[in-house]
Amino acid sequence: MTSDIGFQAALEEARKGAAEGGVPIGAALVSADGRILGRGHNMRIQKGSAIIHAEISALDNAGRLPASEYKGATMYTTLSPCDMCTGACLLYKVMRVVIGENKTFVGGEEYLKSRGVELEVLDNTECKELMAKFIREKPSEW
Amino acid sequence: MTSDIGFQAALEEARKGAAEGGVPIGAALVSADGRILGRGHNMRIQKGSAIIHAEISALDNAGRLPASEYKGATMYTTLSPCDMCTGACLLYKVMRVVIGENKTFVGGEEYLKSRGVELEVLDNTECKELMAKFIREKPSEW
Repeated sequence: MTSDIGFQAALEEARKGAAEGGVPIGAALVSADGRILGRGHNMRIQKGSAIIHAEISALDNAGRLPASEYKGATMYTTLSPCDMCTGACLLYKVMRVVIGENKTFVGGEEYLKSRGVELEVLDNTECKELMAKFIREKPSEW
Repeated sequence: MTSDIGFQAALEEARKGAAEGGVPIGAALVSADGRILGRGHNMRIQKGSAIIHAEISALDNAGRLPASEYKGATMYTTLSPCDMCTGACLLYKVMRVVIGENKTFVGGEEYLKSRGVELEVLDNTECKELMAKFIREKPSEW
């Protein structure tokens, strides 16, 4: 079942990214018992960063946690995760990845499935609209 | 052919990590024409970071580069890359990954190969000794 707080947190992060003029992708890592462990958004433009994608930002903001905290966790992300973020989910043994949309971009979904990670794609309209607006306004940044 | 400057930079970074009391893994990203684009070492202990592994640090320190800079690049790393760092190499379309050693840990080597990335494993003694010393002294950190 999709945790409303997880997806809502990811979506709020994507909106923050949009408000900052950044790539509007957000993520939230939620523990098996429903606590938000970390949340964040893509900072490529804001920080000139090659590595702070939304999922990486959520893991970074969660800090160093004991393995037990990641056990059974779900990563919520507004866009299908790229190869790096796919790998980050695998490193921390995230059990499930909930994806806002994968029309704009399809990342490592097949690989996640092949490694036993559950996937859910919400096909959320706001996630798609945020990306469409960004790509329309800043095509060279996408 | 292995670029001496790339592997030496990665090894120097691993030594810096060891001197700081951190996980002694270093990396360097080298362009097709032999320039070091970025270098760094694992900062898990130093920064309490869940994401700053050596390869991520090298990519971070390289900053945001045009795609042409990554084209044909080689990632040098003193230890076989974990799933996250494997994915980061794929994201930036690194052509080749040169690995100091993979006796302590084997990461996403098969996946890299399946995605067309060339691999070279040096089985370097100093890389192995740095890790062995770290694991002996701080077993709970590994």
